[in-house]
Amino acid sequence: MIEIGCHIFIKKGGRTFLDPVKTSLLLEISKSGSLSGAARILNISYQHAWILVNEINKAYSEPLVVKKRGGNNGGGTEITANGQRILSEYHSISKQINKLINQINTEINF
Amino acid sequence: MIEIGCHIFIKKGGRTFLDPVKTSLLLEISKSGSLSGAARILNISYQHAWILVNEINKAYSEPLVVKKRGGNNGGGTEITANGQRILSEYHSISKQINKLINQINTEINF
Repeated sequence: MIEIGCHIFIKKGGRTFLDPVKTSLLLEISKSGSLSGAARILNISYQHAWILVNEINKAYSEPLVVKKRGGNNGGGTEITANGQRILSEYHSISKQINKLINQINTEINF
Repeated sequence: MIEIGCHIFIKKGGRTFLDPVKTSLLLEISKSGSLSGAARILNISYQHAWILVNEINKAYSEPLVVKKRGGNNGGGTEITANGQRILSEYHSISKQINKLINQINTEINF
């Protein structure tokens, strides 16, 4: 079976701050409130997750992932309101592109 | 400046036989009639180019890149008619997806 797929990435000033892996990481941080928890779910090392978060924060004009201090669990990691908005924009863009791809998938003849 | 981009790939039976790098390789082989010439233009090693060609040929149900024997230059490498057709389909698909992306690029507000 032939299938078209697409990796969507978003750049700022030529640097990629969102791609499928980074988006999954943001989503898992947002769900669990923990960088180590998100890394475990994505099956990547904590160090790798931290490098990705740094890339996201550096490529965008402000940090989208921040350390949360205090609380019952002694802090954690969270996505800023702007980060949540961008994540939701990414999903809306993916949805539009994937709708077109699904349409092409039913028409192609390789 | 924020910019959306997309890497399109095409799979057969779960194996990727076309992606941006493989497509550029096929295009350069098609132009130059030579695998080493194509590798030089893409700035990859001959060995790397050959691995990519093998991946393309194995993932698709028939070889799309073949050795051409004889002729004035003692042979070379060429894309089969089916390979040319698939390459042209890939470009037509890219065009459709990129048209939508350009449209989204003018609308996004990150």
